[in-house]
Amino acid sequence: MTYVLYYSPGAASMAVHWMLIETGLPFEARLVDIDKGAQHTAEYRRLSPTGRVPTLVVDGVPRSESASLLMLLAERHPATALAPSPGCADRPEWMELMIYLANTLLPAMRDWFYAGIDGDPVGADAVKALAQKRIEQAWDRLEALLSDGRAYFVGNALSTVDFLALVLMRWSRNMPRPATTWEHLSMYIQRLRALPSFIEVNAREGLTDWSNSTA
Amino acid sequence: MTYVLYYSPGAASMAVHWMLIETGLPFEARLVDIDKGAQHTAEYRRLSPTGRVPTLVVDGVPRSESASLLMLLAERHPATALAPSPGCADRPEWMELMIYLANTLLPAMRDWFYAGIDGDPVGADAVKALAQKRIEQAWDRLEALLSDGRAYFVGNALSTVDFLALVLMRWSRNMPRPATTWEHLSMYIQRLRALPSFIEVNAREGLTDWSNSTA
Repeated sequence: MTYVLYYSPGAASMAVHWMLIETGLPFEARLVDIDKGAQHTAEYRRLSPTGRVPTLVVDGVPRSESASLLMLLAERHPATALAPSPGCADRPEWMELMIYLANTLLPAMRDWFYAGIDGDPVGADAVKALAQKRIEQAWDRLEALLSDGRAYFVGNALSTVDFLALVLMRWSRNMPRPATTWEHLSMYIQRLRALPSFIEVNAREGLTDWSNSTA
Repeated sequence: MTYVLYYSPGAASMAVHWMLIETGLPFEARLVDIDKGAQHTAEYRRLSPTGRVPTLVVDGVPRSESASLLMLLAERHPATALAPSPGCADRPEWMELMIYLANTLLPAMRDWFYAGIDGDPVGADAVKALAQKRIEQAWDRLEALLSDGRAYFVGNALSTVDFLALVLMRWSRNMPRPATTWEHLSMYIQRLRALPSFIEVNAREGLTDWSNSTA
């Protein structure tokens, strides 16, 4: 059954969109125009009660949580080899990194961008300060992993970790210290941005501001 | 190979400890005495660079992230049936809820308890206020799931989601609105706390303050 992806350009949905393009799986992408408030319509809220993207319709059921969708797609399509197989030596590190990105960088990014919307605007600066600290600590940790010269985060092969990591790194582009500030992260970013599937997802989402030719 | 679990009573490690007891898998539990700073010793930092619990030694390699460890154990031991099998109808919801707990409640709880340690104490109240709001929104969402009368979160059977959810609910016991304040969560908590394996993990960790007989 064809997947249906509800996305917004450059949002967390981009990781899933990228994966779907990379794999060649059949899917239909539907834009949720967040600038026009499309995420708040009754129609979209039936798919996503929280009004967030991505939503991926899997076997007719709307599913959420980008990290979970990436893991689920890898599991449903083992031939795509975008996760180490269960029982493989690299499987624990893959799972640990998926969870680490999901429970450290994703919520800290939420704080950085939405502190004043999710919470009291008066306290937003304090929330953002802690978020920035945590995000930079996470870049330190990921930098340390890449400093051994590995081309990808897990098992010397492209995996779901890379899809999520690169989108998170992209989000830092206008932060005080973008991920590109870190030496090994910068080389990793250059390498991953050169992948045809990443260039293609940028084109399909109309994104031009974080490519090897522009930055 | 026997698992080795490094734990602190009532910490996130409790979910893994509980699962290990429930499954009957061979393991050795080693206390990390956080009150005495044992998480900061060079010996422990070699296992856990961030100085957190749990660490689970899997095939000789130290692994972290409680949600990942629960998923990994379920995958390595399918006979324990603590996660829907890949391909099962309940698998997407199980994965989505594991990620949801990991990237919503876990980081918000971190903020609630450690805002002034992880970040500037001056901003801690603002961070805690947003954390409390997010935690209560999460209880609302979990309450809605349980309001259909299900006994467990996924597939009408005990799963890793329940281990993590109950430990998170336990952490709310001294918050302004503990999880027990929600009707269906309260019934769920009563039911889960009656499980022999939950009573056993409390006994082994020396915990007495959140049981059906005391609260």
